[in-house]
Formats: sequence, structure tokens, C-alpha cells
Amino acid sequence: MVEYDLKSLLQKIRDERPLVHNITNYVVMNFTANTLLAMGASPVMAHAVNEVEEMTSLARALVINIGTLSNPWIEAMFLAGKKANKLGVPIILDPVGSGATSLRTKTFRRLADDLKLAIVRGNASEILSISSSDVTTKGVDAVHDVEHASATARNMARQLGCVVAITGPVDLITDGERVIRCKNGDTMLGRVTGTGCAATTTIGAFAAVSRNPLEAASAGLAYFGLAGELAAAKAQSPGSFMISLIDSLYDITPEEFQKRARLEEG
Amino acid sequence: MVEYDLKSLLQKIRDERPLVHNITNYVVMNFTANTLLAMGASPVMAHAVNEVEEMTSLARALVINIGTLSNPWIEAMFLAGKKANKLGVPIILDPVGSGATSLRTKTFRRLADDLKLAIVRGNASEILSISSSDVTTKGVDAVHDVEHASATARNMARQLGCVVAITGPVDLITDGERVIRCKNGDTMLGRVTGTGCAATTTIGAFAAVSRNPLEAASAGLAYFGLAGELAAAKAQSPGSFMISLIDSLYDITPEEFQKRARLEEG
Amino acid sequence: MVEYDLKSLLQKIRDERPLVHNITNYVVMNFTANTLLAMGASPVMAHAVNEVEEMTSLARALVINIGTLSNPWIEAMFLAGKKANKLGVPIILDPVGSGATSLRTKTFRRLADDLKLAIVRGNASEILSISSSDVTTKGVDAVHDVEHASATARNMARQLGCVVAITGPVDLITDGERVIRCKNGDTMLGRVTGTGCAATTTIGAFAAVSRNPLEAASAGLAYFGLAGELAAAKAQSPGSFMISLIDSLYDITPEEFQKRARLEEG
Repeated sequence: MVEYDLKSLLQKIRDERPLVHNITNYVVMNFTANTLLAMGASPVMAHAVNEVEEMTSLARALVINIGTLSNPWIEAMFLAGKKANKLGVPIILDPVGSGATSLRTKTFRRLADDLKLAIVRGNASEILSISSSDVTTKGVDAVHDVEHASATARNMARQLGCVVAITGPVDLITDGERVIRCKNGDTMLGRVTGTGCAATTTIGAFAAVSRNPLEAASAGLAYFGLAGELAAAKAQSPGSFMISLIDSLYDITPEEFQKRARLEEG
Repeated sequence: MVEYDLKSLLQKIRDERPLVHNITNYVVMNFTANTLLAMGASPVMAHAVNEVEEMTSLARALVINIGTLSNPWIEAMFLAGKKANKLGVPIILDPVGSGATSLRTKTFRRLADDLKLAIVRGNASEILSISSSDVTTKGVDAVHDVEHASATARNMARQLGCVVAITGPVDLITDGERVIRCKNGDTMLGRVTGTGCAATTTIGAFAAVSRNPLEAASAGLAYFGLAGELAAAKAQSPGSFMISLIDSLYDITPEEFQKRARLEEG
Repeated sequence: MVEYDLKSLLQKIRDERPLVHNITNYVVMNFTANTLLAMGASPVMAHAVNEVEEMTSLARALVINIGTLSNPWIEAMFLAGKKANKLGVPIILDPVGSGATSLRTKTFRRLADDLKLAIVRGNASEILSISSSDVTTKGVDAVHDVEHASATARNMARQLGCVVAITGPVDLITDGERVIRCKNGDTMLGRVTGTGCAATTTIGAFAAVSRNPLEAASAGLAYFGLAGELAAAKAQSPGSFMISLIDSLYDITPEEFQKRARLEEG
């Protein structure tokens, strides 16, 4: 078990309702906004080049997700990101589908190069897509095993100077030194679109109330995974699971979170 | 109690299934389309500058929502709005997040200046954002009390020459003379994204079958709020609440609506 | 009854999890992605001109849906479509709202002229919109009877050289010679937004595993309609129906599909 005071972190989100600015993909906008609202944070979605900087300056975390990229959105990601860096607002990046097309891979690399990221969350294929040339991604699905990615994750975290979170059957979270494994989750999460993106925005909510990105990423994945477990206990099909997942994000108490998070060192 | 024949208005929506054209934000499109379908109206979403005028000319109400603005969409809002004005199609505006960024505040002001609006619906911060300079908005959440906004609402309705609806714990609806208070609603509505936008599009459906915008705005908020009450009686968490809300929008009978609407003068 | 081995087709989707590339409208993206995931396929949404060709080359079917058109998206549809034709990836087109605005009608016609389509699925008004000049569409709702469209469908299938599927109380599927009627479905499907689009993407999943587009279109409509029937047996209001529909898309077994599909020749 790790030492994080998860109870207090969740309580802080619920007390302070931090604003999380999302520049994200069309598919998941509704779902991720509802994820943030259910858990107690305040979502805002804004993508126009002529307002993203102002919106980021109101926010306590910036979530950038490349799931349905196009050039004007990429430009906005950089504008918002630069502003976030200037103001010390943590940036959480979700490189959806990196490795599947060169636009996505290049954009992930450019964002990582030009911005100071706090946390990157993706599946193994996405994360590995900018670390080696012999890795391919099948759409947005992971094709690599989490275990294989462990050493690479640590390397990438060092290379990027940020926390890297690789999700899979067991999630790996590392700042380049420590590696934390999160065992919360359920396979049914793979049957609902946007659960990866929602996990990332959940991390965003925790990053808004924690100065420690390793803690924020670990807490976010444990929280989202736990909600998945509770939902799976109630619903065995993806429609009702999805609804039960949103319910669980709202229902989990700080005490329950502390007790049921499965975060382990190493 | 006010004198509106709510029963007949709802029946008219269900009999005539009026087409409501929405130029709205990415986050809520699915939810607001389902809101309209559930209550008995016909939704259409179209935003391209090269088709909005034609689409508006087929519709019986035009709902403009600035929740995820960008320049091409703003241009389309004006094109559709001018066409609506020309044809006498009522325009219902939702100034989402006005006050949070200057793009939104300016767009709200320009839309209000250049178009003849029938109804504007927002929370107190949004509505107040173009009336005074010392008002700020935290993202899309309201930070002002509905009561404080009452006098301003009447002033703004006069200034804009349209009905203004300010939603909060109690909703205020005014044409600058009469003030109607709507007490339907439930706090759980604040935990689901797009409920404000869905309330606005519900007003749009009533505006499509009523020539009286004060009546349409009051009916719309009472109807949506009542659906929220019925949903809250069945579901205490936001995922299942959201689904129950859509169910209720479909289930409410004209008689039930007439009986349970809580609209009061003054 | 027709001769299709529906059981094996569905099993193939679940075994192979084919990637289906969607260039679709904002309203339904989440719903159609969840439709594909629930039934066992892999969705990807990508629309940028600088990545669609690469994404299409990874996919086993391309679904083009014109529900919220704009010029950059139209350009992407042609780029992806040309690539699909080059690689033999089947294209399934949903001409949402064709007939309602000239942009949509023209785009449908251009797509049909310039691309080799495998299947077009729409309601009668949409399909008829490019076959005669005296047909109008009310928004995205059908105003014509399926029966009237039968002869036209066959003509259009010949004209376009592709399978045409016209959905309504009874669905008609034809390759210009054979006509298959699908009797699966439920009226509640008309109360949820995007069910037509989701039926089209369901066809896309079947087209990814079948070389016979008449079979793929028939299987897709039978499968989606059957899911609607099962959902309606559990839920009588549109919110819970929508969730139950996603559940059913996941729950239906290959055996159940074979047994309960209602596809008839003629």
C-alpha cells in the first residue's frame, strides 16, 4: 500500500469543486463532463483559439485529449498549454490513438516537446508510440502488455520529465523513479467508449487539488477503477454499466475510497 | 398560480411534433436532441454556414447555445438568426459561460444587439455578464443569487426587448413587466451536464407552439423542472437520474403537467 | 426466411473485433461508438483531412454519415472514401437529412457519384431525395411510406450500383434484384436520437466481416432491430430504453440472433 491520503484528496475535490478545463474529443465530451460533475469537480469544455487561454487561466487543471484532432484544435492545445505552463496549471495529456496515424503520433510528440506536462495517461501502445519506431496501434485499442511497458514507462517519464500512467489490466504510474501499480478496475470498462478519456479527466480533478502528480495520477486511476468495480457489481451489460459507473463516481465516499483503493509500490 | 393552459401547450407539442433547429454545443447535442424527442418535439442540429438558413426556414423555433464557440459557428448563428427574424421563427438564446471569457461575453452581446431574440435563458452570472462590469462567472456555474438578479432581469428584459429567464434554486421569468417564478426543479439537475442547455431547448419546443414567449419560457422551465423532480424521486445518483429525467420528459401527461407545474406571479 | 448464416457472422464480429472507421455527426458519435463496442466491434472516429486516409487504411469498413455537415468534413469524406475504394474497404453511407437542405442533398449525390458505395441506409425521404425532385424531407424524419419506396429502391440500387436499405416500419434491403424485408424493430427506436445512425454503423460492423453487402445490410438491420425489440420488452420510456438497447446489443448471442432475425425475401 502507498502512503497517500486519498480520503482528504477526494474530500478536497468535493469541497472546492475545482474547475477542470478540457480540450477533448467530440466522442467523449458529454461523458467526461458527467464524470467530473459526478465526482464533485466542475468541468468546462472550450476549444477556440480565441478563448482557450482565458479559460485555462480560470482553471485548476488542463486536460488535453487528441481523440478527434484537427489543425485548429491542435493550435488551441498549444495556446492553452503555454498559458497553463505560465500560470502553473498542471497539464494532463491523453494521446488517444497515438501510433495509429502520423498526425496523432506527431502531435503527441510536439505536445510533449513544447509543453511542460504534469501527467500523460494512455494505454501501452499509445505511450510507446513515441518511444520506439516498431510499435503500432490498432485504432485506439492497446496491443501491448502492461508488464512489457514498465521499463519503458520509467524511461519515458524521465525523458519527458513528467509522470506517465499506462493503463491496462494493471495500471502503471511512474515519475521515473517510483512505480506504483493500480489494481482497481474491471474488464467491462473496455466495453464503454471514453472510459480511458474519463480516467484521464478524473486524474485532472485530482491534479487540481494535489501538487504531487504521481499522487494525482495514482489517485485518479484508483478512483475511476474503483467506480468501475462498483458498477460491475451492479450491471453486467455495457449500457447499464455506463450509467452505474457515473452513479458510482458520485456515490463513493472519501472513507470508502481510502479503504478500497488498491495502489501498490513497485 | 398563473393562467397558462399548460395542458394544451404540451398536447400541441405532442400532436404537431414541431421541428426545433439547434445550433448548440458539442457537449450537449445528444442530450438535448433526446430531450426534444422524449417530450414529443423533433430536433435537428445543423451548424454549417452553407445550410443553416435553409434549415432554420424549416423549423418552428431556433435555439442558439454558445457553449463551445468558435468563429465559424458564430457566423452561422448570425445567419440562422437573421433568417429566423425574417420568417418570424422565435429565437431562444442560451449564453453558456458568458462572463467567463470575453469571446463568450462579446458574442452574447452581439447576438443580443443584432438579432431580435424571443427568450434568453441562463444562470444569474451569465445573464448579468452583459449588464454590468463587476460580475464574474466561474466557468459555467452560477455564482450569483437569483433574488439579487430579479430587478436586473426586469431591466435586462426591457433593455433587450425579450423575455429573460434566470434559472437557479427558483427560476425567474420576466418580460420586463410581469415576473413569474418557477419552483419546479431538483438540486440533482446540477450534477448532470447540459441540464441548463436542455431546459433551454425545452423552452424552444414550447416557443414553437406558443406565440407568447413569457408563457413559453415559463412552461418550458416548469416542464423541465417537473421532469427533474420526478426523476429525483426515482434516482439519487446522477447517472440513473439522467436516464430517469429523459424517461420523465416522455412520461409526463398533459394533465399531470397542468397539475404539478409550480408557476407563481411576482 | 433468407439463407444467411447470421450466427457465424455475429460470431466473426466478436472473434475478430473489426475496426470500423466512422466519419459521422457530432450528435451520435458517442452513441454509435458504444453501439459498435457493445456488439463486439472496434470503433474509431477521425475526421481530419490530414489523417482520414491513414485511418481508413487501418479499418475494415468506413461509415460516412452526413448528419452535421460542413465543408472540411465533406472534404475528409471524399479523401477517406477514395482511399477505401482503392483498398477495397466497404463504404456504408448514411445520408442524414438529405432532402432537407440542398447542402445535404448535393453532398449525398456527389458522394454517390464519385465513390463506389457498398451500402446506403436511410429513411424513405432521404433515399428518395436524390431520385426525384418532388420529394421533401422534414428535418431528419421520414415522411414517406416504405412501401411506396420499394420500386424506387430497386431502381436506385441499380442506378447507384450498390445495396440500398430503406428503414421504416418494415425495412427494405435491395441490391437492385433481390428485395429483403426486415421486420425486426420497435417504434420506441424513433424516440431516441441516433438510432438510424447506429443502425448504419451496425451494418458497418457486418460489412467488415461479410463480402456480401446485401447480407451485411440485412444482418445489420435485423441485429439492431432485434436489440430494439429486446430493449422495448424491458423499458417503456426512451431514457431507459436507450440504455437497454446498448445492453441488448451486447447480450444477444449468435444463436439468438439466428433464431429471432425476421428477414424475408420479396
